Amino acid sequence: MEEVLRFKKKDLLRYAQTYMEKLGVPEDHAKIVADVMIEADIRGVDSHGIIRIYTYYGNRLEGNYMDPTTPFKVISETDTTTLYDGGNGLGHVVSYHAMENCIKKAKKSNIAIATVKNSNHYGIAGYYAMMALKEDMIGVSLTNSQPLVAPTYGKTAVIGTNPISFAAPSDRQYPFVLDMATSVVPIGRIKVYEEKKEKIPAGWGIDDEGNVTEDPKKVKSGGPGALMPLGGTDIMRGYKGYGLGIMVEILCAALSGGSHLTQVGFPHMPKVCDVSHFFMAVNVNAFRPVIDFKKQIDAMITLLKESPKATGKDRIFIAGEKEFENAKYNEKHGVPVIKPVVEELISNGKRLGIPFELLPIK
Amino acid sequence: MEEVLRFKKKDLLRYAQTYMEKLGVPEDHAKIVADVMIEADIRGVDSHGIIRIYTYYGNRLEGNYMDPTTPFKVISETDTTTLYDGGNGLGHVVSYHAMENCIKKAKKSNIAIATVKNSNHYGIAGYYAMMALKEDMIGVSLTNSQPLVAPTYGKTAVIGTNPISFAAPSDRQYPFVLDMATSVVPIGRIKVYEEKKEKIPAGWGIDDEGNVTEDPKKVKSGGPGALMPLGGTDIMRGYKGYGLGIMVEILCAALSGGSHLTQVGFPHMPKVCDVSHFFMAVNVNAFRPVIDFKKQIDAMITLLKESPKATGKDRIFIAGEKEFENAKYNEKHGVPVIKPVVEELISNGKRLGIPFELLPIK
Repeated sequence: MEEVLRFKKKDLLRYAQTYMEKLGVPEDHAKIVADVMIEADIRGVDSHGIIRIYTYYGNRLEGNYMDPTTPFKVISETDTTTLYDGGNGLGHVVSYHAMENCIKKAKKSNIAIATVKNSNHYGIAGYYAMMALKEDMIGVSLTNSQPLVAPTYGKTAVIGTNPISFAAPSDRQYPFVLDMATSVVPIGRIKVYEEKKEKIPAGWGIDDEGNVTEDPKKVKSGGPGALMPLGGTDIMRGYKGYGLGIMVEILCAALSGGSHLTQVGFPHMPKVCDVSHFFMAVNVNAFRPVIDFKKQIDAMITLLKESPKATGKDRIFIAGEKEFENAKYNEKHGVPVIKPVVEELISNGKRLGIPFELLPIK
Repeated sequence: MEEVLRFKKKDLLRYAQTYMEKLGVPEDHAKIVADVMIEADIRGVDSHGIIRIYTYYGNRLEGNYMDPTTPFKVISETDTTTLYDGGNGLGHVVSYHAMENCIKKAKKSNIAIATVKNSNHYGIAGYYAMMALKEDMIGVSLTNSQPLVAPTYGKTAVIGTNPISFAAPSDRQYPFVLDMATSVVPIGRIKVYEEKKEKIPAGWGIDDEGNVTEDPKKVKSGGPGALMPLGGTDIMRGYKGYGLGIMVEILCAALSGGSHLTQVGFPHMPKVCDVSHFFMAVNVNAFRPVIDFKKQIDAMITLLKESPKATGKDRIFIAGEKEFENAKYNEKHGVPVIKPVVEELISNGKRLGIPFELLPIK
């Protein structure tokens, strides 16, 4: 295990914001990016946290591959729909506004959808879906992404890991928050096994011939090989995960007119990504009193958690539960960042004139 | 392989309709039920076709466990939302009307959602999602169902196989039609292996202790054992399939106020099922010209189908493609029904005074 340092949430937020501002991001935008990014670390989704500040964002801003001012605009709208051009800016900024807009429209029209084209990596999908919770709405957030997943019977990566996030409010329990890639695992998980020099489980990835492989070196971003869609092989119904990935691609790219599949750029590479997003808010109260809905969500969660456990297991989890528990712990004890990331923050910060001088909580 | 007899589509439709009418279903309702049921056989989804006419519907109508007149009603509605009480009638009837209503509302408001409680088995989810296609809309159809799936780390069936169907219109290609249970496989698939006296693949089902089993006799409807959610084990990310199943449960049961999880009845058993459904229609034209959207769907399909194939595979499929090809073949050559089902239709038909006297196409 890597050594972990813990920092105060507000320190990390301030650093991430300052970093963004230094690279030309307006203050109010930088606040949004920082909040989405650090929320990932707080919830324990460290793959989407401050670890990405340079490779996914800083790097692209420095290279002028994306516009730090995120000049997003509304292309067209109705009482229930909005189509945005993300202005090749920070995905977080247009996404935050798009989801806010959905919530605002759903207060009047009960349902609203926004799609965004010409955007970039937007951090954790769940952040935007969860924005609906405070308004007692159901939130949905989808995005396409760079091609890493092979279709069933294919052998090259043509589909993104295209995540689905769905959030529903509860009463006394944690809200239900699904936030999942439509591949079995993300590419970073394969890399972890490569670094540990361990085999990957059969069904996570395929090699250059399209055969299931247990060798992590044969499953790389940009090839060789590819990730497998949720389910894995066809006998395990991997074509369902493949279908879900394409559903996300349709709702994001085809409904917005953005780039699709292999047209989508890699966030660490010097070209326009043209990532597309989809957001939806549903006003629960249009169907039934919110409190009744929330109590039913609680009852469902209780029923699931109290159902009999498999031998050797003592707990059944609900989507989002672990992340809410992580957040509770990390808000209190500090947000964990592994040492190699801290070192990278220090060296990159020095080079860019944004020194990372936070003191870890001892 | 079972012997297959083929019948003319219109003969099967007429028989199914007559059957329903004989059991007290009004003519216009019987037409809908017959159309949904035979469409399943036409598309090759024979598990939801005429094979179910007695066990899922006739049996329940004879026993007065459901109301043949399907006295569904609107509980509340807005410009974009409708909540139905299905009147404990035929799921197909209220679902057909609910989806029609969504399409009608979406013509004005661009998005519409309908939820239905107090309903019964509605046949193939895809039927209703596909209703949106002829109006150049995206269609979504979800339903909860009797508990057959265990949550990750659980050992008993508490969740339905809760299918997701999503349909999007295309230009020259077949439309994209995803129609998938959120379990790895349906319970009927396990039974097929039991009858063949073959092992099931590891990851489809668990035994009474919650351990993955390859013995189909240990995975039964009503127990022992349970189906596994899409993905399978936790290492293969079965908790994602579990999360999707609960997402469907929330959108169907919690948003309508219907029964959830283990409260939902089994369609072959003498009690009220209280199944819930969810439907959505999205007017593509609100975002961009429909023809541009459709051409992009075509381009995505072409890109997927032309991507390199795994060794030993010569074709990549798109969700719904096999079913459209089945339909094309079966409309021309007759709708296939396996001999044991024909024999059951004959014997049940005789008993009920609805003789099954169709001549198979030779």
